[in-house]
Amino acid sequence: MSSTSPPIVRTVAELRARVGAWRAAGERVGFTPTMGALHEGHLSLVRLAKAKAARAVVSIFVNPTQFAPHEDFAAYPRNEARDAELLASVGCDLIYAPTAAEMYPPGFATTVTVAGVSEPLDGAARPGHFAGVATVVTKLILQCGPDVAVFGEKDYQQLLVIRRLVADLDIPVEILGAPIARASDGVALSSRNAYLTEAERPIAAELHGALAAAVEALRAGRPVAEAEVRAAARLSAAGFARVDYVEVRGAGDLARLGPGPIRPPARVLGAAVLGKTRLIDNLAV
Amino acid sequence: MSSTSPPIVRTVAELRARVGAWRAAGERVGFTPTMGALHEGHLSLVRLAKAKAARAVVSIFVNPTQFAPHEDFAAYPRNEARDAELLASVGCDLIYAPTAAEMYPPGFATTVTVAGVSEPLDGAARPGHFAGVATVVTKLILQCGPDVAVFGEKDYQQLLVIRRLVADLDIPVEILGAPIARASDGVALSSRNAYLTEAERPIAAELHGALAAAVEALRAGRPVAEAEVRAAARLSAAGFARVDYVEVRGAGDLARLGPGPIRPPARVLGAAVLGKTRLIDNLAV
Repeated sequence: MSSTSPPIVRTVAELRARVGAWRAAGERVGFTPTMGALHEGHLSLVRLAKAKAARAVVSIFVNPTQFAPHEDFAAYPRNEARDAELLASVGCDLIYAPTAAEMYPPGFATTVTVAGVSEPLDGAARPGHFAGVATVVTKLILQCGPDVAVFGEKDYQQLLVIRRLVADLDIPVEILGAPIARASDGVALSSRNAYLTEAERPIAAELHGALAAAVEALRAGRPVAEAEVRAAARLSAAGFARVDYVEVRGAGDLARLGPGPIRPPARVLGAAVLGKTRLIDNLAV
Repeated sequence: MSSTSPPIVRTVAELRARVGAWRAAGERVGFTPTMGALHEGHLSLVRLAKAKAARAVVSIFVNPTQFAPHEDFAAYPRNEARDAELLASVGCDLIYAPTAAEMYPPGFATTVTVAGVSEPLDGAARPGHFAGVATVVTKLILQCGPDVAVFGEKDYQQLLVIRRLVADLDIPVEILGAPIARASDGVALSSRNAYLTEAERPIAAELHGALAAAVEALRAGRPVAEAEVRAAARLSAAGFARVDYVEVRGAGDLARLGPGPIRPPARVLGAAVLGKTRLIDNLAV
């Protein structure tokens, strides 16, 4: 870890002491929850937080409760020292990296669930995922007590679930969505891209390509059902082993749209498995 | 309403403006959520809040989501003017009386559930009840942002559910339990006692009597199962139409105890229906 790395705290009490001192001094606090394995996408969120608040806190916690038993919790990349160096480069003021025992002590029994927006798409493909996300994000925000919290649009459905629960539970925080950061080949930046082999990388780029083609077709007045079917077919043809979904949905609530030409604002969202890597992406229509 | 009544606000924005001003002035804030129809039990909670904080906020909201369709939501007693006068008498500084639309606007979709402690007893007798309670209490506390919130031990299981969710979701508030206030005949004060007929009142007192006898038997070393069965039989014999439960449980987590002599701390809890009134009560062993 370089000497310029932000301080790292591992308990709620330490986190609150630091944030409380900033609040007492009249400084606004921005918060970016992450699972570590940081990339330029995360750093863009921290820059946005830093533009909105004097202080930027970043949490690093690979949350076990949002992974299903067969998913990649154990394999999920972890490199705290490198994360700390990257965070230093964007002016992060504090890293909060709790242990699983700090987050879920013995006897833990509470779950936050969001109906509606959490049910289709990744909610259907990953049972229990959004309950895990909703619960840990509620905890992290209430632990930190920021003025503003920033989440990437890469996990678009997650962003809507978080907006919903923050409004519904009256959590006093502003939620900001940040645009997807992409590599030069169009692939949305994701910690899971590290799983891709060299041979898979050009295939991975087809996910963004298929969604972009769907957006173009929809803008040209083609029917929703046609755009969805063509995009899914393109992914299968490109070599994705499984297409979980390609769907065009209402941008605000992920409501299903009619099969005909769309009424904006809409969002096209896709998830597909390439080798051992599950990729997701989405685009505004 | 008398001229000395505390101000009444009906929106989260007004509530936060008032509480925010007190916090900014360095004053501690105590909070007592109620469903109105106030009695001496509620007033004892407000006095306790006032002893712990410079300012006392009381919410009055008959929460529809904690009543099952066949329960007494519509009939539940409401008398805001009288409640305001009573609250003035104990130094309440602010009444928060939101509408159902303020609490649950269109699109509301989030639920807080607590496993374990919410499952037996009233959790089994009233499906969905504690999810409604957990969600509304989470909202009310996050809306108000108090330093301390006070709940009565009359709803003992509810108090444990709230302690659990506040710890689990890291809500920055201290939860205080307050002892049960009783009438001279031993009946625990409850807004629902207003449903009792004159003829039912002495029968109602048997609930406390049966629980007190169970405590005595347990202290004398009698087995748990015997104490439970005898108390339930006494209630049936006294004229209760239905005994939902009389159980001796661990005081901290409501864990089931063995059938033999108890190891304290334990709590004996009972719920039974008399005419059209469902009564609950509990005692420390």
